[in-house]
Amino acid sequence: MRKIKIAYIGGGSTGWAWSLMSDLILNDDICGEVSLYDIDQQAAAYNAKIGNQYNNMARSIWEYSTADTLKEALSQADFIIISITPASLEKEMYSDVHHPEKFGIYQSVGDTVGPGGYIRALRCIPIYITIAKAIAKYAPFAWVINYTNPMSLCTKTLYHVFPQIKAFGCCHEVFSTQKLLANIVAKKYKITTPKRRNIKISVQGINHFTWIDKASFQGEDLFPIYAEFVQNNAQGVDFNNASEEGMYFCSKEMVKFDLFKRYKLIAAAGDRHLAEFFPASIYLDHHKQYGFHLTPVSYRVARQKERMNMAYLLAHGKKSVTVTPSKEEGVQQIRALLGLEEIISNVNLPNIGQVSWAPMGAIVETNAVFRDNEVVPVCCADIKPDVKKLLNNHVLTQEAFFAAYCQEDYNALLQAWSGDAIISGSRLDLNELQKLFKEMIDHTKDYLPPWLKNS
Amino acid sequence: MRKIKIAYIGGGSTGWAWSLMSDLILNDDICGEVSLYDIDQQAAAYNAKIGNQYNNMARSIWEYSTADTLKEALSQADFIIISITPASLEKEMYSDVHHPEKFGIYQSVGDTVGPGGYIRALRCIPIYITIAKAIAKYAPFAWVINYTNPMSLCTKTLYHVFPQIKAFGCCHEVFSTQKLLANIVAKKYKITTPKRRNIKISVQGINHFTWIDKASFQGEDLFPIYAEFVQNNAQGVDFNNASEEGMYFCSKEMVKFDLFKRYKLIAAAGDRHLAEFFPASIYLDHHKQYGFHLTPVSYRVARQKERMNMAYLLAHGKKSVTVTPSKEEGVQQIRALLGLEEIISNVNLPNIGQVSWAPMGAIVETNAVFRDNEVVPVCCADIKPDVKKLLNNHVLTQEAFFAAYCQEDYNALLQAWSGDAIISGSRLDLNELQKLFKEMIDHTKDYLPPWLKNS
Amino acid sequence: MRKIKIAYIGGGSTGWAWSLMSDLILNDDICGEVSLYDIDQQAAAYNAKIGNQYNNMARSIWEYSTADTLKEALSQADFIIISITPASLEKEMYSDVHHPEKFGIYQSVGDTVGPGGYIRALRCIPIYITIAKAIAKYAPFAWVINYTNPMSLCTKTLYHVFPQIKAFGCCHEVFSTQKLLANIVAKKYKITTPKRRNIKISVQGINHFTWIDKASFQGEDLFPIYAEFVQNNAQGVDFNNASEEGMYFCSKEMVKFDLFKRYKLIAAAGDRHLAEFFPASIYLDHHKQYGFHLTPVSYRVARQKERMNMAYLLAHGKKSVTVTPSKEEGVQQIRALLGLEEIISNVNLPNIGQVSWAPMGAIVETNAVFRDNEVVPVCCADIKPDVKKLLNNHVLTQEAFFAAYCQEDYNALLQAWSGDAIISGSRLDLNELQKLFKEMIDHTKDYLPPWLKNS
Amino acid sequence: MRKIKIAYIGGGSTGWAWSLMSDLILNDDICGEVSLYDIDQQAAAYNAKIGNQYNNMARSIWEYSTADTLKEALSQADFIIISITPASLEKEMYSDVHHPEKFGIYQSVGDTVGPGGYIRALRCIPIYITIAKAIAKYAPFAWVINYTNPMSLCTKTLYHVFPQIKAFGCCHEVFSTQKLLANIVAKKYKITTPKRRNIKISVQGINHFTWIDKASFQGEDLFPIYAEFVQNNAQGVDFNNASEEGMYFCSKEMVKFDLFKRYKLIAAAGDRHLAEFFPASIYLDHHKQYGFHLTPVSYRVARQKERMNMAYLLAHGKKSVTVTPSKEEGVQQIRALLGLEEIISNVNLPNIGQVSWAPMGAIVETNAVFRDNEVVPVCCADIKPDVKKLLNNHVLTQEAFFAAYCQEDYNALLQAWSGDAIISGSRLDLNELQKLFKEMIDHTKDYLPPWLKNS
Repeated sequence: MRKIKIAYIGGGSTGWAWSLMSDLILNDDICGEVSLYDIDQQAAAYNAKIGNQYNNMARSIWEYSTADTLKEALSQADFIIISITPASLEKEMYSDVHHPEKFGIYQSVGDTVGPGGYIRALRCIPIYITIAKAIAKYAPFAWVINYTNPMSLCTKTLYHVFPQIKAFGCCHEVFSTQKLLANIVAKKYKITTPKRRNIKISVQGINHFTWIDKASFQGEDLFPIYAEFVQNNAQGVDFNNASEEGMYFCSKEMVKFDLFKRYKLIAAAGDRHLAEFFPASIYLDHHKQYGFHLTPVSYRVARQKERMNMAYLLAHGKKSVTVTPSKEEGVQQIRALLGLEEIISNVNLPNIGQVSWAPMGAIVETNAVFRDNEVVPVCCADIKPDVKKLLNNHVLTQEAFFAAYCQEDYNALLQAWSGDAIISGSRLDLNELQKLFKEMIDHTKDYLPPWLKNS
Repeated sequence: MRKIKIAYIGGGSTGWAWSLMSDLILNDDICGEVSLYDIDQQAAAYNAKIGNQYNNMARSIWEYSTADTLKEALSQADFIIISITPASLEKEMYSDVHHPEKFGIYQSVGDTVGPGGYIRALRCIPIYITIAKAIAKYAPFAWVINYTNPMSLCTKTLYHVFPQIKAFGCCHEVFSTQKLLANIVAKKYKITTPKRRNIKISVQGINHFTWIDKASFQGEDLFPIYAEFVQNNAQGVDFNNASEEGMYFCSKEMVKFDLFKRYKLIAAAGDRHLAEFFPASIYLDHHKQYGFHLTPVSYRVARQKERMNMAYLLAHGKKSVTVTPSKEEGVQQIRALLGLEEIISNVNLPNIGQVSWAPMGAIVETNAVFRDNEVVPVCCADIKPDVKKLLNNHVLTQEAFFAAYCQEDYNALLQAWSGDAIISGSRLDLNELQKLFKEMIDHTKDYLPPWLKNS
Repeated sequence: MRKIKIAYIGGGSTGWAWSLMSDLILNDDICGEVSLYDIDQQAAAYNAKIGNQYNNMARSIWEYSTADTLKEALSQADFIIISITPASLEKEMYSDVHHPEKFGIYQSVGDTVGPGGYIRALRCIPIYITIAKAIAKYAPFAWVINYTNPMSLCTKTLYHVFPQIKAFGCCHEVFSTQKLLANIVAKKYKITTPKRRNIKISVQGINHFTWIDKASFQGEDLFPIYAEFVQNNAQGVDFNNASEEGMYFCSKEMVKFDLFKRYKLIAAAGDRHLAEFFPASIYLDHHKQYGFHLTPVSYRVARQKERMNMAYLLAHGKKSVTVTPSKEEGVQQIRALLGLEEIISNVNLPNIGQVSWAPMGAIVETNAVFRDNEVVPVCCADIKPDVKKLLNNHVLTQEAFFAAYCQEDYNALLQAWSGDAIISGSRLDLNELQKLFKEMIDHTKDYLPPWLKNS
Repeated sequence: MRKIKIAYIGGGSTGWAWSLMSDLILNDDICGEVSLYDIDQQAAAYNAKIGNQYNNMARSIWEYSTADTLKEALSQADFIIISITPASLEKEMYSDVHHPEKFGIYQSVGDTVGPGGYIRALRCIPIYITIAKAIAKYAPFAWVINYTNPMSLCTKTLYHVFPQIKAFGCCHEVFSTQKLLANIVAKKYKITTPKRRNIKISVQGINHFTWIDKASFQGEDLFPIYAEFVQNNAQGVDFNNASEEGMYFCSKEMVKFDLFKRYKLIAAAGDRHLAEFFPASIYLDHHKQYGFHLTPVSYRVARQKERMNMAYLLAHGKKSVTVTPSKEEGVQQIRALLGLEEIISNVNLPNIGQVSWAPMGAIVETNAVFRDNEVVPVCCADIKPDVKKLLNNHVLTQEAFFAAYCQEDYNALLQAWSGDAIISGSRLDLNELQKLFKEMIDHTKDYLPPWLKNS
């Protein structure tokens, strides 16, 4: 049995952390300790208690503890998980998502691109600079798994500060498209739904805007089947009960189907995310018609309250922990990196040649091989020029935005932000853009460096 | 004295053709013949008469004649000039420029990008395919100078059909920015306005969207002087009387100055052109405030009528031709290619490495060395990421649009067109976009291949 | 059970063909037919008989038959194996290997690079042009596995003639280095020798000149262990009884160990192959001291005679076929391409970005993922500059040689050939080089196109 | 009149320095001061006296003085010329050139590539590190012109230490090939020899190994004329009296002609230099037959003594200075950089895309535009694969050698050195190579850093 130390930054998390706990104990060949670091020490302390309760039902023992400092968490760590909420939902994320509405800009998520996604990045970058420096100092050889959004710019910051870092970014959005394909296969052949991993896909793109250009199941090309399904389901699907009240994270896949009609490729993320990569006039303005929600932050606040209550109950033994394999791949990836298996999965990494449409060093999402102490991206085939242009546009906006941040150039930052698809499609004039940008910066200024908040 | 044959495709032109006639006779080391080919044979015949009248006052003799076929014009040609109007102003160009207004989209020129520019390209491509094939057959070693807009896609078509072609595209828009700099230098130092060519600039971009990242005069960096001038001229300048009634082609340079404030680089084209590379909400919607015009096609029609009348008068000796050196460089370039001088000027060529932000083979505009039988682009320095993104966005739209045309894929053509900055910033939804595209296609269908007009 | 058709070009083979037969029947989820095509029809007919005898002891049934034409073999094929001997051992290969000895040039193998390898390529290219055209016509969607040397130029020819081909080249040389590492691990830890596939390696290079820059076993970095072993085994190893009389294919790994001392990377091919990538003064001239053989063609002739005799005995039931899992991966790759498993293995493919040191389209050997109907190379890390230079040198020689062939330029062919490491290190002057080249061409002229044999 | 300061590092030079003095006073629009820095202070003092004597006959006044320190020379400098002799001819250069002869390796120059050229580089790199640091500190905006060999690695060092440096490397070898072409033109057309600059050429390569792929005179392609001349002059030419006794720097151009026969391109450097880029068996071993000399260092020593004597005589007024326009372009380049003219000339610069066969950042020689405060390389056409391979081979050897130096890796340095064409073609075995390298290092150790001389 291999003994490892996992450092969990954002260890008070009530989502990913619990998935991890459950997934970890299902293995009988790894064990060790998990050090939880969170600026919300209470939350981390609850999670330490919760985690240790799992050991009763475990095939392997994992000792959970809280760390007071990054140094304490990171020292001797073999793996580092980063899954944080940058600032509060009520204030900063509320501004990210809802303040642009005053200017007529509506967003479905607000954490990736669009006015909100980039402002969120501004909060994340300084935090990730701190984390990257700490990793360089205390755990330079550890594997680092990032789950925080905006994925691209968070991961970019890690590599920018510490180029030798062994980091990659993980996201389950592609998985849900694999599941959709599995459902379609099941319907088509009237068989039980195949396992997600048996739907083989080639993906390339940037996080939340990935594209599948090859999909197969047991040697059969799924593109004709998908095309037929799209044709026959003009009103979308309801595999996840997206039409029910309050199912703010679900969708009818109609954006995905529409994108297939246009580009003949399968967009591989939730519709709420995909919609944000286009001017609002394409999907966001018509979200009801396209069967997806603009998730209000109030919903996130309520959900968080529930989960924190649940954490209290679990930590105090008033509710019992349960073991369910999560839909995440984190533990499987850890096992692969330990040499215990070999998997191929989509992952966010700096471009070293895997795609032709992004500059070297830009963070892109493609398949990669996870093996004994390595994650190696596979080379992607050339993608259709219209989709290449879409991808390139966003990746260059990210690159320009990040460069402007590094050069502490407020004006260049504003220009890069204004070049985002939603913002440039908003018909705001320059004064309005400047005003909106300034106001959003102000709302989030507690997390910004002096040069930026005083600009 | 070197004797050459020039073939002029679009030889009935009343603009470029007269400039050429005047410039040609000012040289005493070249002479020869000019073969004028035009589908408007009357106009070509007038021009032949006009051209031959210049010989009275010439340092060198140029014989002008009309050609009935491309074959006749091109055979034995050393140089080929292409300067055509694709279809009529009244119908097709009217639709390009004004039909989108019904959907709330206003354009200042409508011949480069935007809804009109790309539809114009659809008319040009088949014409240029014909021309390129004829050049490959009848004059494969001739130098080809293109003046027709949209420059990028016309030039792209030539190389696509006949990769060995010795073609480049010329445009005087950058020159006017050099002149602006010369005027600013004159004001600053209270000297007579320097010659345009003494303002040394480094340029890169695509036609009508070029950027100067280095400018000097007699060893002095002009950026600080320009910055100061921009600062002190918030209301623009009126070097060309742009504020007068009907000066539809002039501007107060306020777009250029605004772009400098944003990007710290000097945009090098007329404001009317520059504005079209951004969503309308940035400049086009505020054109009065920014001191430039949305040129109506009616103005072009009236101007054309006047010029055709003038052609009649000149051809019939009722008015005399006059010799004034034009502001164009065509003849100077011809001289350089003959080995008679050596110049450095901006030119449109396929990317072979001169810029890092465009795919190989995309048509880009940079400085190039014109010498004895060669035009060689110079390598450009890396450009700022925010401007790189702007350029890349447009060049990839052009590439995707051209690829869709070649693959005869109506849908991909629509997607590429929809990705243009003006169109994607228009807030038209998918149905409206499809409708507008279809209607514009219909208006221009007399010039389209069957697969496209019947889609 | 999946039913497939395999076409075997060179189906009279007495090596690979028997391995394939044995490996095929060990699977219970695939079955089908194998069509054997060979210009030696007798050999193919024997093999058909031999193959069918395996069905007695099979988990799956494979029907073997001979094909009289490429068309017959290829039609309906799902997989195509190419494993041919270009021309005869006695005449053409004898000249490849031994004729240069008259000029003081000795080779250990003579089928990859060096004077012989490139002349062999000249024979192979026309054959592969024929094969590629037939595949394009009769089996354009089949997977094509090449085993013939010279691997790089054979595979290059396939893609040159039919760019959409789904071909890759396989070679077991890397496997033997994995086995060497397994043996070293076993010695070090006094454990039973691990399975080859459990030695995880990152490889990049060209066929027979591949380099391992990362190797691990169960999470442990093998480089320090290898370094120690190399240090302690100055006289090489004898895992394969290389020191015994007549073990012409074996070596003491001293070339490999010496390369490690120089470059700190693990060269991953047999020493006989590796030696040929350097001027003879480095290893070939000192082969005894470095513990490897210069394999004489007479040995190959004798071995072939034995094997043909064996084929007769097996085909006529005078000897029984035996089932032993071979050390090849062909059948495993076929299974993976059918979606039955997922493997990562080294393979020869055109460069699409997997390595930075070769031009796009050059054939390089790297790891690749084999999955459901796809083979996707992984991106390789940048390699040390001294090794990059070695690789680049050979890959550019191959590219220049192939380009010269395509342009039917005898002189350029001679120059490219002269640039090979052995040849340029031979101190032959230009006259001697021309003479040797011409004589070798003459000896192999029965297989050359007219422009070449008459040059 | 523009007033400038030129710093001359190696200002005691008796070659370049005198050319510069003479060329400078022929201009009436520039004047200023020249600060001479040399570790041989006597030589610098003589040159100051000599320089000031030119002012009697000058169109412009140049004040010459000596500087005791780099700081003094560089402060306020507008231009910096570097032209040094690294260490002594008698000891270090003697070893570079003649010590390898003990191992059977003969060199014609020994200052560029080959065993001697790379050892010379080892002496230059530390000196150039010192110079680059001083420039970064005292004259970061000055233009830096390097004349010292080995050009590529000296220039590389400058950019490596101070990436913002405005440096380029100049060499007159290409000029002499232009002159050869001018002579051939004169012979062909029985006209007076054209001026060198009127022979227009496209060049690409690395210093002393540049290739002309396009040459013209007044619009006429010179390749057919050159081909005819090569054909008719099998025994070479004697334009420079190469056949006379002691004309150690001249040649009969037979190497150049032979290279044309092989590669159909015009090699553009002296034959003595060209020969060193190939294994000795090709040209060096047959230098008599090919009409060039192996220049002995004793000849250089004698020549230097004469020149130093001349310096004494000139400095003390016993001989008068004379004004002859030199064949160098240094002063013309300075004028162009001051904005006084515009020239296109070949120059050594880091690759930013001008050639496709070298890594970014490698020093390559191509045409460039010299204008007002800028030197911009032009983009080169793709070169034939066989020549591409030759160039790439050498440029990667240089890159690997430089990388090994930077990493202080003795072994990698030895490997890179062993990969040079002459050395790898020498048939020395590894022991001999190690021995030769070590001995040459020892002979030059006074100029080496501790890690290297003690390895």
